[in-house]
Amino acid sequence: MEMNIALLPGDGIGPEVIDQAVKVVKAIGQKFGHKITFTEAVVGAAAIDATGEPYPDATHEIAAASDAVLFGAIGDPKYDNDPKAKVRPEQGLLLMRQKLGLFANVRPTFTFPSLVHKSPLKLDRVDGVDFVFFRELTGGIYFGEPRGRNEQGTKAFDTNVYSKEEITRLARMGFEAAQKRRKLLTCVDKANVMATSRLWRETVQELAPEYPDVKVEYEFVDAVAMRLIQWPKAYDVLITENLFGDILTDEASVISGSMGLMPSASLGTSIKLFEPIHGSYPQAAGKDIANPLATVLSAAMMFDYAFDLKEEAQLISDVVNLSLDEGYVTEDIADGGTAYKTSEVGDWLAAKILA
Amino acid sequence: MEMNIALLPGDGIGPEVIDQAVKVVKAIGQKFGHKITFTEAVVGAAAIDATGEPYPDATHEIAAASDAVLFGAIGDPKYDNDPKAKVRPEQGLLLMRQKLGLFANVRPTFTFPSLVHKSPLKLDRVDGVDFVFFRELTGGIYFGEPRGRNEQGTKAFDTNVYSKEEITRLARMGFEAAQKRRKLLTCVDKANVMATSRLWRETVQELAPEYPDVKVEYEFVDAVAMRLIQWPKAYDVLITENLFGDILTDEASVISGSMGLMPSASLGTSIKLFEPIHGSYPQAAGKDIANPLATVLSAAMMFDYAFDLKEEAQLISDVVNLSLDEGYVTEDIADGGTAYKTSEVGDWLAAKILA
Ligand SMILES: CC(C)[C@H](C(=O)O)[C@@H](O)C(=O)O
Ligand SMILES: CC(C)[C@H](C(=O)O)[C@@H](O)C(=O)O
Repeated sequence: MEMNIALLPGDGIGPEVIDQAVKVVKAIGQKFGHKITFTEAVVGAAAIDATGEPYPDATHEIAAASDAVLFGAIGDPKYDNDPKAKVRPEQGLLLMRQKLGLFANVRPTFTFPSLVHKSPLKLDRVDGVDFVFFRELTGGIYFGEPRGRNEQGTKAFDTNVYSKEEITRLARMGFEAAQKRRKLLTCVDKANVMATSRLWRETVQELAPEYPDVKVEYEFVDAVAMRLIQWPKAYDVLITENLFGDILTDEASVISGSMGLMPSASLGTSIKLFEPIHGSYPQAAGKDIANPLATVLSAAMMFDYAFDLKEEAQLISDVVNLSLDEGYVTEDIADGGTAYKTSEVGDWLAAKILA
Repeated sequence: MEMNIALLPGDGIGPEVIDQAVKVVKAIGQKFGHKITFTEAVVGAAAIDATGEPYPDATHEIAAASDAVLFGAIGDPKYDNDPKAKVRPEQGLLLMRQKLGLFANVRPTFTFPSLVHKSPLKLDRVDGVDFVFFRELTGGIYFGEPRGRNEQGTKAFDTNVYSKEEITRLARMGFEAAQKRRKLLTCVDKANVMATSRLWRETVQELAPEYPDVKVEYEFVDAVAMRLIQWPKAYDVLITENLFGDILTDEASVISGSMGLMPSASLGTSIKLFEPIHGSYPQAAGKDIANPLATVLSAAMMFDYAFDLKEEAQLISDVVNLSLDEGYVTEDIADGGTAYKTSEVGDWLAAKILA
């Protein structure tokens, strides 16, 4: 197969972890006879520094023309504590999501037997956890208008807005995923307070009869924030709006004990993007110590979701598990054993694929 | 002292747990020579059933004329799964907060040595946790206008809005609390996305120099959702807007292992209200099995916050600890020992106060 992959390393440790994913993807290409071309572009603080824009048009053209995007991370502390900064790296992320139409963020949470002891939760709560969030990614309060200040600057406002169509296309993805999994769908909303949430609940209720094999539950966002910690095994597929998804998927990310390993996909009608869920981790940037496994597993998701190549995806997943079993890992999960460099882990994984 | 206390038991287990708090408050009154009068009123589903309104004017007059309000819980499942229901019990809660001007919800999280083993978190993460949320309670997306649907009903919207004054009065409470505690204030926002959050951050930054002994940290809501589980001991005082506070305080409530014991206060410029953080727990209603300790501890907070009577507050807290030590508790925390009834626990606590 021919694959045209856009690389958007972004900021902080982004470039280093993307480098390792590229090694792995190249090895897969070599092994399975795929012709893979990579085109790199800037985004985030890196793009502001280079062009003044957090998501330059040139970057968008490269991403839009690709068959899949591999994305690193965005964010630089120099922009964080200035609430009046005009251009922020995160705007690049939001613009990218919006312009590429990436309306569904898919965030699986699962455990690795060798890492689950690192969870802040007790073993019986988290052992074998396996759920996936479908977070709406291009709507809601992230983009709603009007937003801003009054003239005197003493009052600020944001608008949360959702249409039935936006909810429907995201919810259908959730229903379909549930059909392939344990057939439980949880609609997370705040229907006791928000008008948008009532439209979410109503829309999901209308769709439910089309998926008679799926059991649908409706839970308030505050209840889910509790139950995710109390009994995360209760969940299978969760669907929710952009802001609730932002908070809950991050909460979910720490329960498995392997945050540095969690991949994600952002899907649109045409473009598909894959990224680790961790941030740009600026303290570690340039030190060759960041854990590349989340990005490598995001590349595995890419073969699965973007190219429907299950064998390739599975092989990546297998070598990642091998690296965990053999302790060929970075310092964050070395647990007293030898800590390998980011680049060494990438080389090792690529070599194992070709072995 | 003369005290005029409004009782708003609400729904589900509300009446039962309020009954126990009343026994305890009466015992305190008898012991310390306070003249306490109670006036009861309906709210929530109970009020809808009785009057058609979830927060009737008569109830408001009683609450507004009181020196303090003891509130149980609101919510009835018969209203939950109907997104088109015109009147919902929760509206009573929201109306009550708004009309009484209860702009600050104070939610402490702390552990009881005898219960901390019930936490879903590992002991080293949660042992000795002690932080308090100040959640803004009468603003934000809960009340912002416009909110609703477009004409065809295919689009819904909510408005999040905050003024500098609303932020300032809440933030000052947080700063003052931090001064009396470990002097760390965390401002929780989503300033990388929301205009309201940028006003929060800016306002807190402007106030900070007035409290030079308090260290201020700014964290995004998604990061706090993670860190609350990873390392809850890092926090002291947290301030945040209404919706983020709803989600995060509920998340926080499960980490101590003693959710059934957590009290809260809602404070305004004149009225002060005290309530357990748990819900109306309809499955248990009328069975005399609900844990009354959160409501009893809310009564302790009442003596402290509403009447500045520290000794009375401390005595309530002491007898609650005694009931835990001696295992005179309801089934949810009986841990294989004898389970006492809600009413028995209330009688026992009152007797101990007078002993
Ligand atoms: C950086 C920020 C704008 C972003 C978001 O809120 O969506 C991030 O938290 C995420 O979840 O990808
Ligand atoms: C019942 C609901 C409206 C309420 C809220 O969201 O504020 C509740 O969750 C709470 O936190 O008191």
